[in-house]
Amino acid sequence: MPLTDLPLEALREFRPDVREPADFDAFWEKTLAESRAAGAGAAVLREPADTPITGLVIEDLTFPGFDGEPVKAWLTRPVGREGEHLPTVVEYNGYNGGRGLPGERVGWALAGFVHVFMDTRGQGSGWGSGGDTPDPYGSGPAQAGWMTRGVDDPAHHYYRRVYTDAVRLLDAVRALPEVDPARVAVTGGSQGGGIAIAAAGLVPDVWAALPDVAFLCAWERGLQVAMSDPFQELARYLAVHRDQRETLLTTASYLDGVNFAKRITAPALFSVALMDAVVPPSTTFAAFNALGSADKHIEVYPENGHEGGQTYQWLKQVEFLKARGA
Amino acid sequence: MPLTDLPLEALREFRPDVREPADFDAFWEKTLAESRAAGAGAAVLREPADTPITGLVIEDLTFPGFDGEPVKAWLTRPVGREGEHLPTVVEYNGYNGGRGLPGERVGWALAGFVHVFMDTRGQGSGWGSGGDTPDPYGSGPAQAGWMTRGVDDPAHHYYRRVYTDAVRLLDAVRALPEVDPARVAVTGGSQGGGIAIAAAGLVPDVWAALPDVAFLCAWERGLQVAMSDPFQELARYLAVHRDQRETLLTTASYLDGVNFAKRITAPALFSVALMDAVVPPSTTFAAFNALGSADKHIEVYPENGHEGGQTYQWLKQVEFLKARGA
Amino acid sequence: MPLTDLPLEALREFRPDVREPADFDAFWEKTLAESRAAGAGAAVLREPADTPITGLVIEDLTFPGFDGEPVKAWLTRPVGREGEHLPTVVEYNGYNGGRGLPGERVGWALAGFVHVFMDTRGQGSGWGSGGDTPDPYGSGPAQAGWMTRGVDDPAHHYYRRVYTDAVRLLDAVRALPEVDPARVAVTGGSQGGGIAIAAAGLVPDVWAALPDVAFLCAWERGLQVAMSDPFQELARYLAVHRDQRETLLTTASYLDGVNFAKRITAPALFSVALMDAVVPPSTTFAAFNALGSADKHIEVYPENGHEGGQTYQWLKQVEFLKARGA
Amino acid sequence: MPLTDLPLEALREFRPDVREPADFDAFWEKTLAESRAAGAGAAVLREPADTPITGLVIEDLTFPGFDGEPVKAWLTRPVGREGEHLPTVVEYNGYNGGRGLPGERVGWALAGFVHVFMDTRGQGSGWGSGGDTPDPYGSGPAQAGWMTRGVDDPAHHYYRRVYTDAVRLLDAVRALPEVDPARVAVTGGSQGGGIAIAAAGLVPDVWAALPDVAFLCAWERGLQVAMSDPFQELARYLAVHRDQRETLLTTASYLDGVNFAKRITAPALFSVALMDAVVPPSTTFAAFNALGSADKHIEVYPENGHEGGQTYQWLKQVEFLKARGA
Amino acid sequence: MPLTDLPLEALREFRPDVREPADFDAFWEKTLAESRAAGAGAAVLREPADTPITGLVIEDLTFPGFDGEPVKAWLTRPVGREGEHLPTVVEYNGYNGGRGLPGERVGWALAGFVHVFMDTRGQGSGWGSGGDTPDPYGSGPAQAGWMTRGVDDPAHHYYRRVYTDAVRLLDAVRALPEVDPARVAVTGGSQGGGIAIAAAGLVPDVWAALPDVAFLCAWERGLQVAMSDPFQELARYLAVHRDQRETLLTTASYLDGVNFAKRITAPALFSVALMDAVVPPSTTFAAFNALGSADKHIEVYPENGHEGGQTYQWLKQVEFLKARGA
Amino acid sequence: MPLTDLPLEALREFRPDVREPADFDAFWEKTLAESRAAGAGAAVLREPADTPITGLVIEDLTFPGFDGEPVKAWLTRPVGREGEHLPTVVEYNGYNGGRGLPGERVGWALAGFVHVFMDTRGQGSGWGSGGDTPDPYGSGPAQAGWMTRGVDDPAHHYYRRVYTDAVRLLDAVRALPEVDPARVAVTGGSQGGGIAIAAAGLVPDVWAALPDVAFLCAWERGLQVAMSDPFQELARYLAVHRDQRETLLTTASYLDGVNFAKRITAPALFSVALMDAVVPPSTTFAAFNALGSADKHIEVYPENGHEGGQTYQWLKQVEFLKARGA
Repeated sequence: MPLTDLPLEALREFRPDVREPADFDAFWEKTLAESRAAGAGAAVLREPADTPITGLVIEDLTFPGFDGEPVKAWLTRPVGREGEHLPTVVEYNGYNGGRGLPGERVGWALAGFVHVFMDTRGQGSGWGSGGDTPDPYGSGPAQAGWMTRGVDDPAHHYYRRVYTDAVRLLDAVRALPEVDPARVAVTGGSQGGGIAIAAAGLVPDVWAALPDVAFLCAWERGLQVAMSDPFQELARYLAVHRDQRETLLTTASYLDGVNFAKRITAPALFSVALMDAVVPPSTTFAAFNALGSADKHIEVYPENGHEGGQTYQWLKQVEFLKARGA
Repeated sequence: MPLTDLPLEALREFRPDVREPADFDAFWEKTLAESRAAGAGAAVLREPADTPITGLVIEDLTFPGFDGEPVKAWLTRPVGREGEHLPTVVEYNGYNGGRGLPGERVGWALAGFVHVFMDTRGQGSGWGSGGDTPDPYGSGPAQAGWMTRGVDDPAHHYYRRVYTDAVRLLDAVRALPEVDPARVAVTGGSQGGGIAIAAAGLVPDVWAALPDVAFLCAWERGLQVAMSDPFQELARYLAVHRDQRETLLTTASYLDGVNFAKRITAPALFSVALMDAVVPPSTTFAAFNALGSADKHIEVYPENGHEGGQTYQWLKQVEFLKARGA
Repeated sequence: MPLTDLPLEALREFRPDVREPADFDAFWEKTLAESRAAGAGAAVLREPADTPITGLVIEDLTFPGFDGEPVKAWLTRPVGREGEHLPTVVEYNGYNGGRGLPGERVGWALAGFVHVFMDTRGQGSGWGSGGDTPDPYGSGPAQAGWMTRGVDDPAHHYYRRVYTDAVRLLDAVRALPEVDPARVAVTGGSQGGGIAIAAAGLVPDVWAALPDVAFLCAWERGLQVAMSDPFQELARYLAVHRDQRETLLTTASYLDGVNFAKRITAPALFSVALMDAVVPPSTTFAAFNALGSADKHIEVYPENGHEGGQTYQWLKQVEFLKARGA
Repeated sequence: MPLTDLPLEALREFRPDVREPADFDAFWEKTLAESRAAGAGAAVLREPADTPITGLVIEDLTFPGFDGEPVKAWLTRPVGREGEHLPTVVEYNGYNGGRGLPGERVGWALAGFVHVFMDTRGQGSGWGSGGDTPDPYGSGPAQAGWMTRGVDDPAHHYYRRVYTDAVRLLDAVRALPEVDPARVAVTGGSQGGGIAIAAAGLVPDVWAALPDVAFLCAWERGLQVAMSDPFQELARYLAVHRDQRETLLTTASYLDGVNFAKRITAPALFSVALMDAVVPPSTTFAAFNALGSADKHIEVYPENGHEGGQTYQWLKQVEFLKARGA
Repeated sequence: MPLTDLPLEALREFRPDVREPADFDAFWEKTLAESRAAGAGAAVLREPADTPITGLVIEDLTFPGFDGEPVKAWLTRPVGREGEHLPTVVEYNGYNGGRGLPGERVGWALAGFVHVFMDTRGQGSGWGSGGDTPDPYGSGPAQAGWMTRGVDDPAHHYYRRVYTDAVRLLDAVRALPEVDPARVAVTGGSQGGGIAIAAAGLVPDVWAALPDVAFLCAWERGLQVAMSDPFQELARYLAVHRDQRETLLTTASYLDGVNFAKRITAPALFSVALMDAVVPPSTTFAAFNALGSADKHIEVYPENGHEGGQTYQWLKQVEFLKARGA
Repeated sequence: MPLTDLPLEALREFRPDVREPADFDAFWEKTLAESRAAGAGAAVLREPADTPITGLVIEDLTFPGFDGEPVKAWLTRPVGREGEHLPTVVEYNGYNGGRGLPGERVGWALAGFVHVFMDTRGQGSGWGSGGDTPDPYGSGPAQAGWMTRGVDDPAHHYYRRVYTDAVRLLDAVRALPEVDPARVAVTGGSQGGGIAIAAAGLVPDVWAALPDVAFLCAWERGLQVAMSDPFQELARYLAVHRDQRETLLTTASYLDGVNFAKRITAPALFSVALMDAVVPPSTTFAAFNALGSADKHIEVYPENGHEGGQTYQWLKQVEFLKARGA
């Protein structure tokens, strides 16, 4: 795969014109307030996970997400540290993957962090070991996939629910006894990176944002230059619904990572891969260049595709958090 | 594309072992009874369609479908035949297409039939000109696409709702003043053929069943030999949910065209294409060979792919209905 | 499919240098004069089409085309309007399609127009339901396909014959009793759009030109940037005949839609799709930007591939003609 | 590429039912007689080729082919052997290639043979360095490519002309002073192998037939199992002209290599490649197994694709001819 | 992806004829003896790995492999169990992957096992995070890739060195103080599964063999039916070296997993995926069906591709070892 | 295939910044001196080739290459010119091809030149008829293929050995009695073109350099824009070894054709194809634009892919040499 987007120098200056609705903040304040109210009475459940793993504690976490609906996560943490308030990493998953089976993501816990890995509602059947969280909402006519479910109105859109789940998980995690609420970072790759950006934009006092090859930024650019799904779901939808372009772009403006990035003030470590055919590097740079954070960095992987830096990037992330108090 | 399945002689004898649940009939009787009850009070709405076409009457039909929910269709009929009870063809659509814009399917009406073209709930964004009917139901973790939405239980499955819509449309159409209720046939290509088979299995006194290159038959065979989606959605789902094979196949047994075909007694004209890479010919033959109809025929298109016979087959269908009283 | 060509702003200004031979007009005047002379004695034949359709009148039209050779078309018109002079649309077909079976294209007639759909000589075996017009001319060494047949000399080229057929069909149609000769528009998609441009350039008093995603414009640009056939037939030919570049481009200059567009003065409604991988948008814009028409418009479909606007565009075309006297 | 057809043991017994018209021999006798008559007065022209090669004599040969029309070939022979009657190999070319430039095929002449390489009329623009022979015949609606040109009637079919050219070249070559008319073999790869089979079936006293990975045998089997063009041209044609199956197969029966192979009595050395995705091995074995020759051999290349044995096979061919008097 | 090989019932009986050289055992005894002698004086080195992981002990292991050459591995084990003799799993890697970075494979150690993950010499640049072990041997002409390096003679073949490394790692691991030498199992996926089969065939008293979707079995079958590399490297090599078939198959017979499987007597848990396009299921079944083990099992994943069961299979493996004394 | 790189006008000015190590000349002087010393005592062997060809003399040449190791070549020359000192062309081969069988490349000899065709060590199993020269050197972890073998250090890199072979072949050829040492040109296509550039940079008094569609120039540009292997081997390697970018680019700088081109002073005839998807035209122009030669020319094939000009270019090369004293 050759380079898939602009040369690196141009990417570093790429600031597309992404529309921002006047009621962006109001929309999200209302959304979060309603879901927090709906979930107010719901307990956060923790059950021991069914796994042969004994070297870490793994728990099956259920928390009230969007509209108080139960959402699943795996909580993985070091053994024998019960009395401490540990630094914590909340991770969101890539497109069409589920939280999988317990013990599949253990790096952070092995390095001494509490790690919480959120299930993405409705997804979890595309690769890996599956997911456990339903998405009990239908939609109007939509593309196969999730990008256009509820595209007629930001209030109906799938990612409104997912982003709210993400924030509500932060609410839940910061109240756990093992967690140091001042040291909760968000991370994730691809879609997970996009969710992390949204969460960090909506929860300003998060410890750090660590999105990898982040998807869900600069949607209009994405649908024009991405060579594959999921961005192309948007283009295929518009290829049929030729009169819905304005509606789709308006809905997208409430969900675009660029608008969340502007609102992030936490330290941020991004990554981007220049041979990425799924997430065009320019869409990730659009968010990075818009970041409100003073303390921001981006790792560039010049010859990687959508897999990005993998463990190399994880080591950078650990180092980044250690330098900031882990 | 070379031949995609067994040689024709073997296809003519292909009768795979498709599981049939003991409560198959009870399940569908209950399903239909509940939806008929839910929609009992809902009127069938007819509005003139917005179209420059004056050579036919085109109406925007809204009828109570599954659970009484409003479902859209286009009703197209000859001008100046208002006092008559015309022979009628109800058509269902292919996968991921919508009913489109008025006037896109006019052949049957131009040949003197009332034609009703049902919108497929939730679909309609994959090709063509779009759809207008939402599917207000979420699901557990599912593949992108519709085959695995609600795969955990036949009561939740997407096609339970679609098949019920299809039957409820027959209920509505047979009560229209222009329609001769004794002469209402069902047709459709690909997914539409599969829906037509289900409708004809559930409504035994339909005039005729005319499914083209019918999909949704012999699901287990389909997921094993089909070279592409939508059958492959099932395989990809099971590739992740390795422990859900039995559940999926049980759910599928309530929806499999082979089980509906056994219950069809109306005259039937099928078609099949031997270079079809989407719907393996053996899955369609599995339904055809299981048909309960005494008067049954299948047109074989030896060198066609999934497009099948197109207008050639439509001419056969018109002739078939004319020979049976149109 | 991402965008396949220049950004929209650049397309709107794209005016490539297309060579125009000094004897372009003389070449075509002579060509048309000879074919008109050759066909002078030939009657235009009309036979009822064999079809179950009763809601429209469909006739099998045979007219003298290039060198007076018989060419086929379907004439479709409203019932019961025999005494009127109706507005008329002449349509040309896409690459490798034939006129198909009667009744496959009925939209214009249903909207009150006479519609004539020309068979493209020699083509008609690539998709759809076939064609009925031979092309009784051989060629020197050529690529499979039609773009390079007779490429050694414009007098031998396949499209010289096709464009002449297109003009001769206008001659024939304007003389039909049901047709208002002052209201005969030309249309077509892809190759059909290119033929419509040629016809409108050669018949200056045509009512309107309505080419969709028009092919056959800016051939040199096309062969350099198109991602697929038929433009790539030219590149593959030159990849073998490395010494024939000048000859091919000279021949092409007699056939290039840009040169015809300069000569069009009728009202024109174009369309273009920005994710079109078959007809690069820049080649269509090259013709549109060169149009001689004062009254010219182009519909841009930003997310469509080569299918373009389909029914959406047809509705625009109907509206365009209605606003101009239909 | 894995194996593309039946296992080798099954191939060795594969004898499909290929229809043979009752007037097969009469058809060809008449065809050849007419072309021989038409070309009776035409001289065979020989001009020195324009080439920097001095180590061989290369001449530009023009001979009267089908209906006496001029067809080109390259004649290449050793220097300094003018007084002798040399063993000779006539070679036909693969699909869509031309005779190219002089000096591109010199192996046989370097080994002491006269070598004549026929241009394939109309082809020669798909790969290589081009061709020089026109095919001055049009056709009815046809697929891009040559397989369906004139498919309505064997008298119109493209390969009737090509096979006749091939025979007429043998007529011409056997009369050349440098050639020993008793030692003229035919060869060719792919399409060239198919033409060699036809020529050897029509000229019973040819010295030997040496077809490589021969195409044009068992057409019906070919269109059903071949994974690519040119056999798939037939399937695509029938996918449109759904009512022309019988016509096409009847025409094909006059051109099928299996019917020519039955009539071959000369020594024959075939080759076949078991991973050939263009020419299914079963189609070549169908011809080989039908051969009338007592002295017949087939080299099997188990892991090759359509390239077959290349120089390895050429060495076998040289050896085969040397053992038979070269 | 549909099924890629025989139906399951046929796979369960598939026993191809795989040649076995008379000196198979002698060849390997000599090979191992020489390498054991060459490495006799070399210490097994253990260095702490550079990693932020604190929840496990990870060490950088260097052991004398083929001809005593240093080979790398990661040793990962539970903390605080230093005095015990733990059950141990030695894992080999898939084609073209390296051992990666420390901490990437931790499941076994988290479940209480010592885990040793061998670097595959020369590989490690195709995916993942890289490898650290050179392969200081050249070869004759070979395909890109490893399957044909040294294919002229089993003594030169790449896998002779790799299999020897695998055995020598078992020698080294069984001598480690933390390891219970009676409880050392071998595992690996794809190529790693093939290496595990070889190791278990050469070290008869291994605790268990747990190969996943094992590659490197039934080479001749593999090169004939596999749809992709690495088996296709063999076919491409033979497509060039048409005279080396016997040599290649003779060399392969010293390396074929089927011949090692016959010699395995340890308990064995295999897995196979029926939609695997890389390793044809029949090649794995060929080894499984030939196993000498009395206690043998195979997990079948009917809808998986080459990823196989992943964590699902790992859980089966843990259970399998626990039932046998872990 | 459309254009694959910059427009022609930009290519003519393309001069990328290619790093050049300070010790470039020293590195190569030492390398050549060592190999010349190592091979000093080795005779150049000539054996008659085993071939049925009698029209040319073909000999199997063995010469001391890198470190004195035996390397194979075919020497082909006109018959009966033994007493003369002929103009000579040394040709290097394309990626993964071998010297093949004798008599496969005879054009130059037929035109009166001595022609020597070098086997590329270790390669020769990808296409064609094979090779005969081993490469007795292993490597660290490397991609399948040759681009990254020994990438850790220019002293270990595969192409150091190949370029040295190329120079040593010139040493050997210029000492042959049939050869005029003042008239020895170098040529080759793709990889062979790259090797020819290296040889001409290292042997300043070569008669002429005739590289076709030359590969191995501007490596960094190549890995960023090439659409396929072998340049993409570099990108895939770096996608794994994310920390080896500087090392790889440093090693590459000793091997980059641009650095050799700067040192060429001989007359040079290049070619380039603008639809080449394997060797981006900009990489070849980078070398051409850097050439030190006063007498330099480049043939541009605007519509060709990686096959380039083939015989058309060979005719240009013959003419070029004839104009310079052949």
